[in-house]
Amino acid sequence: MDYSKFKHSTQVRVRNYEVDWQGVVHNANYLLYFEVGRVEYLKHLGVKLDLSTIKNENRVVLVRNEINYKSPANFDELLGIYTRITYIKNTSFTFEGYIQEVTSKRLVAENLAVHVWLHPQTGEPITVSGNFREVVEKFEGKRMIINDIPLIP
Amino acid sequence: MDYSKFKHSTQVRVRNYEVDWQGVVHNANYLLYFEVGRVEYLKHLGVKLDLSTIKNENRVVLVRNEINYKSPANFDELLGIYTRITYIKNTSFTFEGYIQEVTSKRLVAENLAVHVWLHPQTGEPITVSGNFREVVEKFEGKRMIINDIPLIP
Amino acid sequence: MDYSKFKHSTQVRVRNYEVDWQGVVHNANYLLYFEVGRVEYLKHLGVKLDLSTIKNENRVVLVRNEINYKSPANFDELLGIYTRITYIKNTSFTFEGYIQEVTSKRLVAENLAVHVWLHPQTGEPITVSGNFREVVEKFEGKRMIINDIPLIP
Amino acid sequence: MDYSKFKHSTQVRVRNYEVDWQGVVHNANYLLYFEVGRVEYLKHLGVKLDLSTIKNENRVVLVRNEINYKSPANFDELLGIYTRITYIKNTSFTFEGYIQEVTSKRLVAENLAVHVWLHPQTGEPITVSGNFREVVEKFEGKRMIINDIPLIP
Repeated sequence: MDYSKFKHSTQVRVRNYEVDWQGVVHNANYLLYFEVGRVEYLKHLGVKLDLSTIKNENRVVLVRNEINYKSPANFDELLGIYTRITYIKNTSFTFEGYIQEVTSKRLVAENLAVHVWLHPQTGEPITVSGNFREVVEKFEGKRMIINDIPLIP
Repeated sequence: MDYSKFKHSTQVRVRNYEVDWQGVVHNANYLLYFEVGRVEYLKHLGVKLDLSTIKNENRVVLVRNEINYKSPANFDELLGIYTRITYIKNTSFTFEGYIQEVTSKRLVAENLAVHVWLHPQTGEPITVSGNFREVVEKFEGKRMIINDIPLIP
Repeated sequence: MDYSKFKHSTQVRVRNYEVDWQGVVHNANYLLYFEVGRVEYLKHLGVKLDLSTIKNENRVVLVRNEINYKSPANFDELLGIYTRITYIKNTSFTFEGYIQEVTSKRLVAENLAVHVWLHPQTGEPITVSGNFREVVEKFEGKRMIINDIPLIP
Repeated sequence: MDYSKFKHSTQVRVRNYEVDWQGVVHNANYLLYFEVGRVEYLKHLGVKLDLSTIKNENRVVLVRNEINYKSPANFDELLGIYTRITYIKNTSFTFEGYIQEVTSKRLVAENLAVHVWLHPQTGEPITVSGNFREVVEKFEGKRMIINDIPLIP
């Protein structure tokens, strides 16, 4: 993962109830932190993610998550969550993210989350919206790979 | 709380991630267990609790929770969740519940949860549905107090 | 609840996964928010709440929670969590809290959380530490009721 | 993933609070279900997973999770969680799992979870315990790949 390519970050402070009996953040909570990162990223880009939008116009589903645990996060630590979209293919796009403890810059975890764009009615995968491509490309610039929309034969 | 009056129970086994760093179930998770109890109770009585029903016909909101923590529950313990409706007033009804560790019969927690029946459109409190009163009264019998539906003047 | 008496507040933004299928924050999550408030409150007062402290010197347990739900909180809303200690009795002390949506100042929920001070070894209730009383009294001043430590007979 | 190779399964029923505002189980909760599967698997094999064991004798950490979301799980569905250990390498071992809705046999999600065996004091990766290898091999038989413990040079 190329950490130099990330332009967006947000922060969370580890809450008491996110820590399990081993004294560290439970493994599933990192997925929640990465989701916070993606939500803030999309908000920053002005992409609407409220109920009506997702349900009526756009319908996007998460189809795959990968997470590498690098070092445990502890109670009350301030975590930086870094998020970017690394590529947009025909019907899917992928977020990458990493979490770093803010003070020590200790790497905590890495994430890759693949999403697929679905037809609102049929639920079949469809081409990622052109507007979404433009907005992301404008923000990420050369940092990402945007596949061409396949030519109509 | 009169434990002899409960006719309905269900069970949950304490999961790893429900235990906090003190080695016991986190205090908020007992609310989730009591909710499991209420859901199973309503299912047992044949009261529909799916999205469309709640949103279209009935609209019920939780307005108050009380919980007394009696002894901590531990990882992998099997918990019995006991649930009953103690009274139905004009626009509200109240669940009582308690949790007991199954093997030792150790009391874990007690709960009281007050719900209000709302008008589906206006959101104003309205009289609890007559059908709901009947179904609950049939199940609970003399165990509960059902206030009279106020007389039409 | 007298909202004018609160001197401490912190904020949380409602996260996506805290919202249930009714489109509002799930009822158990408010307990987690109030806990965030208490943790920040104690940190602000310089009271140690890490694992070693709680386990070795002090041992404090939550014995009762009350929560009144006033209006549902929604995805991405910024919530102010107000926390104070309302009284310290001989072996127990009580937090009060309320949550207000920051922009609209809409009241979201109120909480009362009773804690008991335990002997680190025996687990029996003991007199709340004098140092804790002093620190809290210094911060809260006339806002709270501190019972006298009972006289040695 | 070869579904015919799994010998262990357990079940969970989807709880109300595990469902997000899209009406389906939130993506992080599947990790919790898979953890339930692993805990039950290890219990079935008689491998101790309590606090003292993990902290004193064995110390095992999760270093990677992969999850493929196949179809969303819904409120109140009964889910079968299938778990096996697919291989044990020198210092690591890997669980595979899948979740199937019990009635329809609809595939819900797949998981791969890599764990590393650490030295209790130094925290450095060490050879997976021979006893653990034996117990797992006895249960899984030819279903898994057990690497030889490297020869002492």
